[in-house]
Amino acid sequence: MKVKFNREQLLNAINIVSKAVSSKTTMPILECILITAFEDHIVLTANDLELAIETSIKEKCQVISQGRTAVEARLFSDIVRKITADADTDITVETDGSIVIISCGSSEFRIQEKDPDQFPALPEINEDQYIVCSQFTLKEIIKDTIFSIAPNDSNKLMTGELFEVQGNKLKAVSLDGHRISIRSVELKQDYGSHKAVIPGKTLSEIQKILPGEAEKEVSIYFDRSHVMFRFDDTVMVSRLIDGEYFRIDSMLSTDYETKVNVNKKDFLEHIERSTILIRETDKKPLILNIKDMEMNLRLNSIVGSLNSNILINKSGKDLMIGFNPKFILDALRVIEDEEVSLYMTNPKAPCFIRDDEGSYIYLILPINFNPAAY
Amino acid sequence: MKVKFNREQLLNAINIVSKAVSSKTTMPILECILITAFEDHIVLTANDLELAIETSIKEKCQVISQGRTAVEARLFSDIVRKITADADTDITVETDGSIVIISCGSSEFRIQEKDPDQFPALPEINEDQYIVCSQFTLKEIIKDTIFSIAPNDSNKLMTGELFEVQGNKLKAVSLDGHRISIRSVELKQDYGSHKAVIPGKTLSEIQKILPGEAEKEVSIYFDRSHVMFRFDDTVMVSRLIDGEYFRIDSMLSTDYETKVNVNKKDFLEHIERSTILIRETDKKPLILNIKDMEMNLRLNSIVGSLNSNILINKSGKDLMIGFNPKFILDALRVIEDEEVSLYMTNPKAPCFIRDDEGSYIYLILPINFNPAAY
Repeated sequence: MKVKFNREQLLNAINIVSKAVSSKTTMPILECILITAFEDHIVLTANDLELAIETSIKEKCQVISQGRTAVEARLFSDIVRKITADADTDITVETDGSIVIISCGSSEFRIQEKDPDQFPALPEINEDQYIVCSQFTLKEIIKDTIFSIAPNDSNKLMTGELFEVQGNKLKAVSLDGHRISIRSVELKQDYGSHKAVIPGKTLSEIQKILPGEAEKEVSIYFDRSHVMFRFDDTVMVSRLIDGEYFRIDSMLSTDYETKVNVNKKDFLEHIERSTILIRETDKKPLILNIKDMEMNLRLNSIVGSLNSNILINKSGKDLMIGFNPKFILDALRVIEDEEVSLYMTNPKAPCFIRDDEGSYIYLILPINFNPAAY
Repeated sequence: MKVKFNREQLLNAINIVSKAVSSKTTMPILECILITAFEDHIVLTANDLELAIETSIKEKCQVISQGRTAVEARLFSDIVRKITADADTDITVETDGSIVIISCGSSEFRIQEKDPDQFPALPEINEDQYIVCSQFTLKEIIKDTIFSIAPNDSNKLMTGELFEVQGNKLKAVSLDGHRISIRSVELKQDYGSHKAVIPGKTLSEIQKILPGEAEKEVSIYFDRSHVMFRFDDTVMVSRLIDGEYFRIDSMLSTDYETKVNVNKKDFLEHIERSTILIRETDKKPLILNIKDMEMNLRLNSIVGSLNSNILINKSGKDLMIGFNPKFILDALRVIEDEEVSLYMTNPKAPCFIRDDEGSYIYLILPINFNPAAY
């Protein structure tokens, strides 16, 4: 195999597939990038057996002789990054026996080839069931929900997100036992009904590599145990998480006794303030004392206390309720509305932050506290 | 004590003194900032017993009642940073018994006061022996030498830098057993002769907080066991490292057999390339093969090999010599000349990188290697 790449194009492709390079594995081949040179284009592939990414380079490259090779991803990436300081230069990659020669100008690197035949093939995906949405939309719904997946897998399903399609509606759901995040969008057409629990890692990686332009699309294919994303010159295939996702509908209620409208930026800043006093070993609730025109925020911890007031618009009953401030913060940080609405019933029932259109719902469970102490 | 600060001024002062706040100590008072309110200005102080910093706030502040207090530095800094989103707002700090109240707008924090009487006083410094230079100059000479102090203190003297004044010359020297860095500057007048070994930590902290303007000055006071820096509204006092610094003059030679002139940027990029192949467990030398118009660079390691050529101007004998590429890199990164000169004698003798004016000298010891392998 002998190919010539434009450095910038190659680096871009390496950055994309690197997201599926395994960092800790007992199989060294999973730390590699597979380079396959076809007649008129070159494909880079990485596959850590959970997630596989393949991207094609079609422009500013030249295939001098076809073939394929595998190289250690980190080393290859470092070499391409540093072999020239000029972004727009050609880099030649050539195999010679079991050696891969990477050269540019007067500099030549020789590194060991890894056996490309050991490289695991991408899973075959049935392309019958799919939806199409804009790259921007997919990035948005991931950003708006990814923060409330559970970080470790005491319950595997909580480490992923439910993607549910019903006709022209796509809904993403994540939950961690303390809160639920739901983001819904309308698709341009009817796509039937599909359900898949996609690993959090897959979603955060695609969020990083998707250019995210509103006028460009991404197709999402739902197979029995895999999901595939196809956009631009890239294909990403991920395993799904097995099992029936939590039934959340029974937890969602539109009844409330207290409704608060508050300026989002103000509310966010007040809550950020309260987190200063929280220590890993001393997780105290933030107490919201909701009265007619004002919400009083208090937090008492071993390091000190905060007392802060914020103007609100309230309808319904007065209420005193406690939360982990981080959970409210996470939701407020992704909401783009100028004003948010909080719906509450009593100090033991969940608080809902949602908009009128139903495009987002954040359910947050309150924390018990002793009202006499505040 | 009750004082009013402008948030931006206060935050700036906190950032300065924070460099002398102890991060790991068994004396909690060393984790504090001391706030002292005088009639018309306020002083912030931190002191970790090695390094002490004091900075005065004279503008945009108001002393309502004089006095002093001590607060946990990290917490105080977090509160000031977040208590308002508006940089140009007033923040009130007030003591009430053993409580410190920090307030701004509708938000009020209450935190525990630490006993200000426990706060260690700054060492008294004799101000007879001193020099004056521009802030820019001091920052420069630190940057140009700090990288070659030894990181740990198997030899305490190697963790500091020699600052030596002779008449109107200031020279800074650092060395770690493999290399020596020397930077000399001319002062505006004659200041007698002084010698001090200043801890590396002190130098890297002052480098961070010095604004570094060329038209502003810094005074450096040399006392028996301390050095004091005074600039703008800030005073920094540091212990010195005890002992006689290494005699380096005998190691410096101006004789050479091979002189190489090379474009600095090119040389830097070629050497950076070679570091890709170096692993913690496999430190291989970079071999420079110097011929008339060309220098060939080779490095062979377990992960691969590099072969690279660079155009040079050589005078004297051909030479093949090996180095730890990191040491050449560190020197090249701080040299601002377009072209650098390397002076060498043989594969066992040090290489000197120096300019004609003698403003910098970098001595780097070579590494033994088997020439037959290259």
